[in-house]
Amino acid sequence: MLNIGIVGYGNLGRGVEAAVKSAPDMNLVGMFTRRNTDDIKSESPCFSYDDLQNMKDQIDVAILCGGSATDLPLMTPEIAANFNVVDSFDTHANIPDHLRTVDAAAKASGKIAIISTGWDPGLFSLARLYANAVLPDGTDYTFWGKGISQGHSDAIRRIEGVIDARQYTIPVQSAMERVRSGESPSLTTREKHTRECFVVAEEGADLDRIESEIRNMPNYFSDYDTTVNFISAEELAENHSGMLHGGSVIRSGVTAGRYNNTIEFSLKLDSNPFFTGSVLASFARAAYRLNAAGECGCKTVFDIPPILLMAENREDVIAHML
Amino acid sequence: MLNIGIVGYGNLGRGVEAAVKSAPDMNLVGMFTRRNTDDIKSESPCFSYDDLQNMKDQIDVAILCGGSATDLPLMTPEIAANFNVVDSFDTHANIPDHLRTVDAAAKASGKIAIISTGWDPGLFSLARLYANAVLPDGTDYTFWGKGISQGHSDAIRRIEGVIDARQYTIPVQSAMERVRSGESPSLTTREKHTRECFVVAEEGADLDRIESEIRNMPNYFSDYDTTVNFISAEELAENHSGMLHGGSVIRSGVTAGRYNNTIEFSLKLDSNPFFTGSVLASFARAAYRLNAAGECGCKTVFDIPPILLMAENREDVIAHML
Repeated sequence: MLNIGIVGYGNLGRGVEAAVKSAPDMNLVGMFTRRNTDDIKSESPCFSYDDLQNMKDQIDVAILCGGSATDLPLMTPEIAANFNVVDSFDTHANIPDHLRTVDAAAKASGKIAIISTGWDPGLFSLARLYANAVLPDGTDYTFWGKGISQGHSDAIRRIEGVIDARQYTIPVQSAMERVRSGESPSLTTREKHTRECFVVAEEGADLDRIESEIRNMPNYFSDYDTTVNFISAEELAENHSGMLHGGSVIRSGVTAGRYNNTIEFSLKLDSNPFFTGSVLASFARAAYRLNAAGECGCKTVFDIPPILLMAENREDVIAHML
Repeated sequence: MLNIGIVGYGNLGRGVEAAVKSAPDMNLVGMFTRRNTDDIKSESPCFSYDDLQNMKDQIDVAILCGGSATDLPLMTPEIAANFNVVDSFDTHANIPDHLRTVDAAAKASGKIAIISTGWDPGLFSLARLYANAVLPDGTDYTFWGKGISQGHSDAIRRIEGVIDARQYTIPVQSAMERVRSGESPSLTTREKHTRECFVVAEEGADLDRIESEIRNMPNYFSDYDTTVNFISAEELAENHSGMLHGGSVIRSGVTAGRYNNTIEFSLKLDSNPFFTGSVLASFARAAYRLNAAGECGCKTVFDIPPILLMAENREDVIAHML
């Protein structure tokens, strides 16, 4: 059995907990949190973050469920100094820096770190790599959604007069169809996605001002066709409390300079954090196995032989899935 | 530069030739054939199959383009005794036996063999493995087509009175939609695919008998809803001479016992052999690199770190695709 520690216990931590508890080859040692452990509602053991370093002998892999903005840049190298780790660092532009920092820590400790797992980065990255490897002459497209964007929802909540909000990122179907047809179109930001907002405003708030502030918010909304719907707190709770997400990676290109090909990888997820947690758990298996084989340092999903993700043995997987 | 030899020069060999010639890091040493080399129409060098064993020092990887029925079971172990090899062995039921035979030969020679590459087995197998690893509680579906099935076309050609024929395998769209919806239906053979046949008959042949023989042919057609169209040789050449194929691997399942998720990987290919050839070329890169790192034996697509398929270096791939 693979002994797993979960560091951080928000939505993603709960997703990892569920995945580890249902895996036939994993044992959940417990969750580690900086919050008061009495506040954690779970049947699994819960420890203080400070206890982690005293439990080196009991944990084979630590799955890190902190955020990419401030937690993981410090947490991943710190924990990789003593444990095999898996994280879901998702600030694409900073991945090379994160890789270098974590690699130094993991090489020094002789442990394995696998960073930026999940679905984007993660499974979508793998889809891009395989599609590029087998179809070098082509164009990549990534569409996200329909799904809740936490960052955009937060941005709306910061507007004066807004009590709560949810924002859906929605891919433009006609653009996806053009890509699938092999047309290889050039698409602007506006042509690829629309944004739909559900907003609960304070009583008497200036709705026109709120809508205008949302639509004109740079980076977040101004480059998109944005729809704003004002609804009640009850309706938000009833119809928009889910965490659905998904998307498609599409590459279209030619072989021999003339035959069209389209490769598409798509996800449709009712719960983004529970699916992401399940992906992280599978990469924990690979982290442990690579380290047991004598390897150390920082790896990405690109470096992992896929067979290492499976609980079943290689012969069975080859016989049934190849 | 990676020096590539192509063994066998049918449609697949031509596909590999095009892929190798356009790869920035590959040099095509030539094709090796059992046919008269004068019959080979290509600008690339062409050699007799018997010359291969004298060119060990000039070839880094031999890409084997023979058939799975009779060529590859003998050819892959024979050539792996002296070369790194890649094949596209696609008789799913016999893959474990093929793996054992080739593994023994490659371990004895200290070479790497990667078997059963292409798209099914190959990319579809990878899609199945990743989807199973990250979504252990679910159901797999594979749909093929719309595409030309060589085996079914050949079966029709063997019927008395038939001059030529093409058979399309077509997935049932309503079944695919049920699977995509997360319904996890049980589907019979007949409910998943239909078969459409275009047949050129001899003048005066009994068309009713031919149609009946096709529809009732066991294994090939009797379990399917089959449509038979009699057309002229000219129409067959004009409208049905392509080699299109494709399909979808779909897995739907739940996380935490309750959230639905659908993972789909799809291909749409104008030319099956040219795309397959391009896949084989990318795995030749991995075969060479694994062997250069000191590994030997028989591998499958499941054993290969994806990064080894790319011509670009790891840092660039991580920076741009992760």
